[in-house]
Amino acid sequence: MKKYMEEALKEAKKAAAMGEIPIGAVIVKDGEIIGRGHNETETGCDPTAHAEIVAIRQAAKRLGGWKLPGCSMYVTIEPCSMCAGAIVWSRIEKLYIGSMDPKAGACGSVFNIPREKKLNHFVKTFYYYVYNLNLILQFRI
Amino acid sequence: MKKYMEEALKEAKKAAAMGEIPIGAVIVKDGEIIGRGHNETETGCDPTAHAEIVAIRQAAKRLGGWKLPGCSMYVTIEPCSMCAGAIVWSRIEKLYIGSMDPKAGACGSVFNIPREKKLNHFVKTFYYYVYNLNLILQFRI
Repeated sequence: MKKYMEEALKEAKKAAAMGEIPIGAVIVKDGEIIGRGHNETETGCDPTAHAEIVAIRQAAKRLGGWKLPGCSMYVTIEPCSMCAGAIVWSRIEKLYIGSMDPKAGACGSVFNIPREKKLNHFVKTFYYYVYNLNLILQFRI
Repeated sequence: MKKYMEEALKEAKKAAAMGEIPIGAVIVKDGEIIGRGHNETETGCDPTAHAEIVAIRQAAKRLGGWKLPGCSMYVTIEPCSMCAGAIVWSRIEKLYIGSMDPKAGACGSVFNIPREKKLNHFVKTFYYYVYNLNLILQFRI
């Protein structure tokens, strides 16, 4: 599990190097990374280009459909409502979160979308606090 | 206002013709449509390709940035949490909803993301019930 979170951190560093909010995500299926992404809203002129969305789109293209069954996402910061919604829609099975985002997080902070029983899919969510993510969180808050 | 909702309906019909869930959206700035989209999750192998996301990405490219100030979105069905989150992120000013989605809607049904005061942007939301949208809503429920 640690190695995948480290891969997500690598993605976050790529975003930082581009002057973007430093958040990264990877999607894993059967031990293989099938999607990766970092925040690129500024450079891409795209408000939807959060790390999670970029990774989901890549993984879906790879699998050839819009569902990602049996997949886990590792993301450095708690997803916002847009990304949490995308995680539910894409049927990701497990979500590992590096650190919380108390201002806009939608997986336990402001909302708890992956665990909302009214929706048609429930995502197993794990809060994996990475102490060295504190620096990354500073940018977001 | 009616003419823009009719344009959103045209987009929904395009989705229906492609065998997609028939939802459409347009984004308007200063009386001009600068983004339009319909659901294309199946054909695009992309779980994030909801009408609202497609329209937002197009409008942002058009304006050359990730913010859409002074813009209004007209959408045939209440946005889900992913799309409602994207609407907040992109700073859309006004949101006109054709009909509600009690199962997954995130603008008053399951969640109310555009009006959540903890977030950094508040979207003025108008519930514009279009009676002939009942047919469209059937597909979603």
